[in-house]
Amino acid sequence: MVWSVFEAAETKHTLSEEAYKQQVPTLRSRLLSLQQTVRARGEFPVLILVSGMDAAGKGETINLLNEWMDPRYMLTEAFGSELDGSPRRPRMWRYWNRLPPRGHIGMLFGAWYTNPLSERMSGLIDAGQFEQSIEQIQQFEGMLIAEGALVIKLWFHLSRKDQRKRLQQLSKDPDTAWRVSDRDWQHCKQYDRYLDVATTLLRKTGTEQGPWHVIPGADSRYRSVVVAKQIADKIEARLNVSAPPTRRSIPLLDPATEQCDRDILDLLDYQQSLSAKQYKSALAQAQSRISRLSRDARMHKHSLILVFEGMDAAGKGSTIRRLTAALDARFYRVHAISAPSDEERAQPYLWRFWRRVPEQGSAAIFDRSWYGRVLVERVEGFCTESDWRRAYAEINDFEQQLTDHGAVVLKFWLSVTLEEQLARFRAREQTPHKRHKITDEDWRNRDRWPDYADAVCDMVAKTSTAHAPWTLVPANDKKYARVTVLNKIADAVETRFQHRGAL
Amino acid sequence: MVWSVFEAAETKHTLSEEAYKQQVPTLRSRLLSLQQTVRARGEFPVLILVSGMDAAGKGETINLLNEWMDPRYMLTEAFGSELDGSPRRPRMWRYWNRLPPRGHIGMLFGAWYTNPLSERMSGLIDAGQFEQSIEQIQQFEGMLIAEGALVIKLWFHLSRKDQRKRLQQLSKDPDTAWRVSDRDWQHCKQYDRYLDVATTLLRKTGTEQGPWHVIPGADSRYRSVVVAKQIADKIEARLNVSAPPTRRSIPLLDPATEQCDRDILDLLDYQQSLSAKQYKSALAQAQSRISRLSRDARMHKHSLILVFEGMDAAGKGSTIRRLTAALDARFYRVHAISAPSDEERAQPYLWRFWRRVPEQGSAAIFDRSWYGRVLVERVEGFCTESDWRRAYAEINDFEQQLTDHGAVVLKFWLSVTLEEQLARFRAREQTPHKRHKITDEDWRNRDRWPDYADAVCDMVAKTSTAHAPWTLVPANDKKYARVTVLNKIADAVETRFQHRGAL
Repeated sequence: MVWSVFEAAETKHTLSEEAYKQQVPTLRSRLLSLQQTVRARGEFPVLILVSGMDAAGKGETINLLNEWMDPRYMLTEAFGSELDGSPRRPRMWRYWNRLPPRGHIGMLFGAWYTNPLSERMSGLIDAGQFEQSIEQIQQFEGMLIAEGALVIKLWFHLSRKDQRKRLQQLSKDPDTAWRVSDRDWQHCKQYDRYLDVATTLLRKTGTEQGPWHVIPGADSRYRSVVVAKQIADKIEARLNVSAPPTRRSIPLLDPATEQCDRDILDLLDYQQSLSAKQYKSALAQAQSRISRLSRDARMHKHSLILVFEGMDAAGKGSTIRRLTAALDARFYRVHAISAPSDEERAQPYLWRFWRRVPEQGSAAIFDRSWYGRVLVERVEGFCTESDWRRAYAEINDFEQQLTDHGAVVLKFWLSVTLEEQLARFRAREQTPHKRHKITDEDWRNRDRWPDYADAVCDMVAKTSTAHAPWTLVPANDKKYARVTVLNKIADAVETRFQHRGAL
Repeated sequence: MVWSVFEAAETKHTLSEEAYKQQVPTLRSRLLSLQQTVRARGEFPVLILVSGMDAAGKGETINLLNEWMDPRYMLTEAFGSELDGSPRRPRMWRYWNRLPPRGHIGMLFGAWYTNPLSERMSGLIDAGQFEQSIEQIQQFEGMLIAEGALVIKLWFHLSRKDQRKRLQQLSKDPDTAWRVSDRDWQHCKQYDRYLDVATTLLRKTGTEQGPWHVIPGADSRYRSVVVAKQIADKIEARLNVSAPPTRRSIPLLDPATEQCDRDILDLLDYQQSLSAKQYKSALAQAQSRISRLSRDARMHKHSLILVFEGMDAAGKGSTIRRLTAALDARFYRVHAISAPSDEERAQPYLWRFWRRVPEQGSAAIFDRSWYGRVLVERVEGFCTESDWRRAYAEINDFEQQLTDHGAVVLKFWLSVTLEEQLARFRAREQTPHKRHKITDEDWRNRDRWPDYADAVCDMVAKTSTAHAPWTLVPANDKKYARVTVLNKIADAVETRFQHRGAL
């Protein structure tokens, strides 16, 4: 037996009807009561990933669990393979958008495993691309677990003989024949190769916090009881730990940058400026470049994702307005990021940004962004240290997925000196229709500036990547800052269009 | 001049560059400050519907307004025509799902007017179907206004000569040629007919609360200033009324039912019951019918929408579980309706149900539903009397749209006598794992029963329609109730399949 992962699952497992009938009532009420507690506590979601061989009873088991538990707080999602059609958003988008919120139990049929498996089987992706998919899964599940999710991974297994028998049975019955696809038969014919691919997948995605459980699929009674017990045990164990599980420590990008250059913002040349006349012509030129590029046919295969961060009163809003003035309103959407809604609070941190990821052919402009976690949330202590420390890697991964899918991702830090900020605060206080823009919080943030400066240094050091670079813009002169930002965007889009072949 | 609606818009309107430059700064800051107030108050959304002739400057105006106001709190949505492809959800679904929340300004390009207009022009729909679309719009806009939205409707007009000139100009310039479609030229060639259809549309959809403003589109400066002034005036007027506008009084379904039969629930036969043996075989039979029907190929063109309402402890949850036990978990979703999320609270009442409308080929099961408005919200005073009074018509309209699109809509009231409810409350208090299901609120609701009974009578009288009937189920015997509900569902789906041609 070569496939040691599955060895135990191939020995004959059965459960007599009598034993089944005896165990089920206790199991059901145990599951139901655990579900109620998960719901009442509302602290974490339970994700049950149901994957494995065709005809191994995945669908039956999901239906059974829906019957045994309260279907009102279950979320069942079926993810087929997406071999055909090129999606308009990055692949992981559809998984992010269908995650169960805290307090709910999600049964994810196939989940994020069906695609890489099918693609590798059909030869659509090579071993290297398969590895990349696996890495994406590792990062995604690592994030889910770090965010507190309980992830239960079930792999349904059948021996070669049992699989053929099950497929034949299903095909014969007119009530079930529709469930057997050509692909199922193909996988069955390539049984050894399928096991080979699956073994790699399981070995590389099973972790301490998210291990795989191989479920013998041949005997339905045995299968059902084992699955139900597994789920009940896992939920019970999770409910019994008072603190969330130890978070997986994610290595920071580069230990050398741990001591980042604290002077980075002081080194900018704040004297740079444009005269009113220079500004007028330079702005018009930059806007015209951007306008043309946004309507270029090549834009249909790309999207544009722009992040604006910076000190209060650094001119983010007015810069964004100069940018959108060059764009068709149907092309872009501006997202002003403030406190999350309660639906967003019930999900992992990046969920609220994933739901705003633009389709290809359009733009999303973020006035403040996912960097809030490593800026205000870090400085103000709104999240734990381990939360913001792991955020760097999560953000890099997020942005990598965006750029891999054709997005041009640019991040701007608009920087003003403390003197200039003070002058702007004062000016705002004097202007009636701008007075609302300056609050006590702005003054508090100003007092905290050294902490923010540290956070900015770390952020730039750890998240300025080749595919999604930070641009630090000295913004004491608004005119200079606006033109610089707009030209940078145009440059980046042009470069991306030219190097499209290199993707 | 036959088209009197547009007459005023065809006389020569221009604005000199000088006058424009003089007026714009004041207008811009007025708009911006009004936008800030709308946002700060957060009481209502502003919907600016931009419709009208091709090439009349709709896109330019939307871009200009995005430039003049703060794009972070604008939502620009473009709705093209949907001539091709049959949508998987009712037509209005896509409008519901893109409404701006309270405090935001939505610019809706084409909005819900493009489709009926294009379809009528192309002959895809006849005069009767066109009337139906108009009626749907009337109801939708009436609901939006009643919910507090400020709806500003702009119709951009061009004379025959000006339209041809503009289309030619746009076609010549390579930067704008992409904006001129074949359909635009077709509409231009059929200018008279287009005006005819548009006149009907405008005359029938202009109301006191949502009037049309015809904007002369030929001169861009004049057009921009008129639009901006119109919007500013409207927002200002709305902000100055302290109370929301007088709600349009929607006639109740049938005045004769105003005195509904208060005995309706007392007349049910609560003695009906099934023996354990009868139940076992009847349940299995009903489940097998439902299971088969849900997998029938004809189901792909239908959806199933089931509403469960009833007194506390009437057995809604356990009935739903008997139903879902017969279904594949990928086919249905159960929605337990409790307090709305904050995103839902910022939208019209029915929004949270529209977002849960199932695709064709699937089912949505509601444990409590949109009837909360005319039940608990009415009885507890959570909404105004005018809110729940207009809800009957809004709900009937909502359900009509669902059934028109192929949905089978069934509504069940599970009714137990007060004695039986008391017995069940007591039993729950004695059972440890059911104790959480009985709260002080349940006891309070019980005391309020006469008010609830009144609300139920009104609800059934006013919303039990041929296309979406109520079924009152005596549920003192749970077994009888479950089998009755399941068979009723199977009957309705069967009937719908058989009469598909009659739709």
